[in-house]
Amino acid sequence: MAIGTRDRIVETTAKLFLERGYTGTGMKAVALGSNATFGSLYHYFPGGKEELAAEALRTAADGYASRVGEVLGGAPDVVTAVRLAFEGAAVTLQDTDYADACPIATVALEVASSNEALRQVTAEIFEGWLVFLEIPFLAAGLDQPRARELAILFLAALEGGFLLCRAAKDPAPMYALGRTVVEAVEHALADTRP
Amino acid sequence: MAIGTRDRIVETTAKLFLERGYTGTGMKAVALGSNATFGSLYHYFPGGKEELAAEALRTAADGYASRVGEVLGGAPDVVTAVRLAFEGAAVTLQDTDYADACPIATVALEVASSNEALRQVTAEIFEGWLVFLEIPFLAAGLDQPRARELAILFLAALEGGFLLCRAAKDPAPMYALGRTVVEAVEHALADTRP
Repeated sequence: MAIGTRDRIVETTAKLFLERGYTGTGMKAVALGSNATFGSLYHYFPGGKEELAAEALRTAADGYASRVGEVLGGAPDVVTAVRLAFEGAAVTLQDTDYADACPIATVALEVASSNEALRQVTAEIFEGWLVFLEIPFLAAGLDQPRARELAILFLAALEGGFLLCRAAKDPAPMYALGRTVVEAVEHALADTRP
Repeated sequence: MAIGTRDRIVETTAKLFLERGYTGTGMKAVALGSNATFGSLYHYFPGGKEELAAEALRTAADGYASRVGEVLGGAPDVVTAVRLAFEGAAVTLQDTDYADACPIATVALEVASSNEALRQVTAEIFEGWLVFLEIPFLAAGLDQPRARELAILFLAALEGGFLLCRAAKDPAPMYALGRTVVEAVEHALADTRP
């Protein structure tokens, strides 16, 4: 079955956000990129660009969580999972000429001080990711506050890594972060052993 | 002495980048905010917005490095320095309603895939910061590869922390990152002791 117009609009918006951010993405470019008319854009998203942006961010966030979830779920233990997640991010950055990174971060920084509705959308997405990332740490025997701390370290390091790697067009920071975050997880696990 | 027109233009641009990013900052807003004419904008920056952006980023980056340098230089040891840097970032975020964060990150993500000249400017800035951040780790006795890794962890965690705190309007992620990065530094220092 061919992808519907509404889904095409959402996917195109998410892709344009990655390339150009929120401010740089006009409804005209969305219409062109998704081969849709202005009429259908506002038919599906009567709230205009802001409503479309909220849905594009949520859809992209779910897709990204699924990809990370496959890496984490496929690993034999949490240390391997963390290592593979950072190595996978480094490889994907190189393979896509540093374009395929976090689908939320650019827009999140753009809207943080200027668009309260979209700021809240990005806050919900990051909170959902943190809860999701706590799971393997909890499963490995860490208590909730410690699992939360490591989930925050994991996500912040990944986001900071995307920033440094994309700016430098160099995967080295992501590999270095993989090593230091793995060490932090290993130390945390060692502390739980009697 | 009153601040000159050129400096006012650069400062206004840096401030607008923090609030709105690169795409969202028009030359008209810069002229209005700095009380300058279009003529003086293009007199000082004949290369237009891109040339002005490069200078605004470099100036903001130097100012930011000075602030971080004061924190690092004033601390009795590197562990305290790292702790104070993250705590200071958390307090500043709260004090400024989550507006005063990294002056480079938003623009860096916006231009990474769309403006090669400005991408290179942000790459130079981050590399300069990493070399600067290696210094206290080297002074504490770590070898160069290890000091580099910890500088990357420090910077990436700070950048990721700005992102998560600004989105959530909550300083908690920055405090959590301070604790985990401090632990990573403590473990690295412990490894160097015989």
